[in-house]
Amino acid sequence: MILINGKADDRINVADRGLQYGDGLFETIAYRNGLAEFIDAHLDRMIAGCQRLAIPFQQLEVLRSELNTVCQQLDDNDAVIKIIVTRGSGGRGYLANNDIEPTRIISTHPLPQHPESNKTAGICVRFCQHNLSENSVLAGIKHLNRLDQVLARNEWHQSNIAEGLMSDTHGNMIEGTMSNIFIVKSGQIKTPELTKSGVAGIMRAQIIRLASENGLTVEQGLISKKNILEADEVFVCNSIIGIWPVNSIDGTNTVFQIGNVTQGLQHALAESSK
Amino acid sequence: MILINGKADDRINVADRGLQYGDGLFETIAYRNGLAEFIDAHLDRMIAGCQRLAIPFQQLEVLRSELNTVCQQLDDNDAVIKIIVTRGSGGRGYLANNDIEPTRIISTHPLPQHPESNKTAGICVRFCQHNLSENSVLAGIKHLNRLDQVLARNEWHQSNIAEGLMSDTHGNMIEGTMSNIFIVKSGQIKTPELTKSGVAGIMRAQIIRLASENGLTVEQGLISKKNILEADEVFVCNSIIGIWPVNSIDGTNTVFQIGNVTQGLQHALAESSK
Repeated sequence: MILINGKADDRINVADRGLQYGDGLFETIAYRNGLAEFIDAHLDRMIAGCQRLAIPFQQLEVLRSELNTVCQQLDDNDAVIKIIVTRGSGGRGYLANNDIEPTRIISTHPLPQHPESNKTAGICVRFCQHNLSENSVLAGIKHLNRLDQVLARNEWHQSNIAEGLMSDTHGNMIEGTMSNIFIVKSGQIKTPELTKSGVAGIMRAQIIRLASENGLTVEQGLISKKNILEADEVFVCNSIIGIWPVNSIDGTNTVFQIGNVTQGLQHALAESSK
Repeated sequence: MILINGKADDRINVADRGLQYGDGLFETIAYRNGLAEFIDAHLDRMIAGCQRLAIPFQQLEVLRSELNTVCQQLDDNDAVIKIIVTRGSGGRGYLANNDIEPTRIISTHPLPQHPESNKTAGICVRFCQHNLSENSVLAGIKHLNRLDQVLARNEWHQSNIAEGLMSDTHGNMIEGTMSNIFIVKSGQIKTPELTKSGVAGIMRAQIIRLASENGLTVEQGLISKKNILEADEVFVCNSIIGIWPVNSIDGTNTVFQIGNVTQGLQHALAESSK
C-alpha cells in the first residue's frame, strides 16, 4: 500500500523537489506484531530533520492518522514502513516557494529476509572504498541525498558480505551503508560521533539508552579502522535488523568473538520489544 | 511538455531511485533561436556522470531522438530544457538490481526572466553560510544530491541579490548556488578547481575555451574569500544566464568594475552563439 498525501497512489509529479534535488527526508520503520516499532522516535527525528532543512512540515497529526490507516491494512503481518517527506513541488530552481506544501509518502514493503544466523553467528563486513561526504548541517539527519550510500553499497555483490563500513575523508569510521557501528574494547562501548557525517540511527539511540539502563556507558568519539580491527567486539545495528554482531572483516584475518556485551544488548533489546 | 522514457507524462513511480536516494543526474540546457545550446557538451557531461555513478545508461541515441521531439514542439520559442536520468526503479535498499533500466525525463520550462542589466551593469552577490560537502567522487558531476544548493539558495530572499557564493568547509570558494565563479586579478583569469566539490559547468568550460582562443589562460586553483574581495573583476556564469559580472557583495563595501576581461568574454560568447 502506498499513500501519497493521504491518497492511494504510486506516482508523484516529476516537479517534486524530492526528485529534483533530493530535497526531503525519510524514515524506515519496522512493523512487527501489530506495532510500528519506535514510531515516536522515528517521527521525532523526521521533525528534527525538517527543522534542519527548514521544511515547514505542519502535518504531523495527519501523517500519524495516515500511518494508522496503513497499519490497519497491514494487520499483524510483519513489514517495513517507509515514510518520505519532501519539501513539495515548486519553486524557481533551488529557491523554494514560500507557499508550497510538503509531500507525504507512506509505503509498505516486505521485511527483508535475512538469515537468523546474522544475529546469532554474526556477519562478515567489508571496508568500503567510497567515503562519506562531510557537512555538519546535513550530519545526523536522514535526508534523501544518499549517493554516498548507493555508491558504497554497490561496491560488492558477494552474498556472504552483509554490510560495508564507511569512513569519512579523514579516515574516521562513521557507519555502515545501512547501519550504525559499535565497538567494544576492554569492556568500554564506543560508537562514532556523527557531528560531520552519518545518520543518527534510531536503533543506535535505543542501544545507547539500553546500555545506560544496564549500567554501561557508550562513548561517542573518533574511531579509526585500527580501532575496529583491534576491538574485542564489533556490531552493527538499524531499526530493521536490530543488532548484528560482526564476526569477520573481508580481506583481513580479523575474527571477532560474539562477546558478552553484544549478547547482553541483544538480550536487552529483545526484552524491551516484548 | 514532459517526456518520461519517451512517453508524454508528468509523474514517475515513487520507487524510482531518483526520488528514493537522489540516485541520478541532470542537465539544464538553454534553448534559443531553435537551438539547444551546447547540447553535445551537456550530453557528454551526463554520460561522464553516469560512468562516475556506474549508471548503465545505454539510451543516448534514444534520448537524442526524444530531445528532437521536444525541440520540434518548442519551435522557435526560447526555453529551458531539463534532462534527468536516474538509475531507475528497483533494488534492495541502496543495492541496485543489475537489470533495472535507467529512467529518462525531459521537461521544458520558460526561460527565467532576468533583468538585462544583470549582464550589462552586473549583479550583487552574497557569501553563503552553508558550505558545500566535499567528496572527490561526486565532485564535478551534476548529480541529484542538491541539498547543499537548496540550503544555500534559501538563505536569502532579497530580490536585489542575484546569486550566493559558496565555499567548502575549508573556506575555499567553489561556486555559486547555480553558477561557476571566475575572478580576474592583474589580468590573470582564475576559477576554483573542482576536485573535491562543485559542478563543472558547461558554460565554465566554454569560457575556458573562449579565453584560450583569445590568447588568455584560465588558472584553476584555490580561491579564498579574500581573493574574491581583492579581485579586479568577478563574474559568474551558467548555461542559462551566460556571463553576469559581479558589481558588489552584500554586506561589504566591495565594489567591482565591469572590466575589459569580463566584457571581452561576454563579447566572445555572444559571437560564438551566432
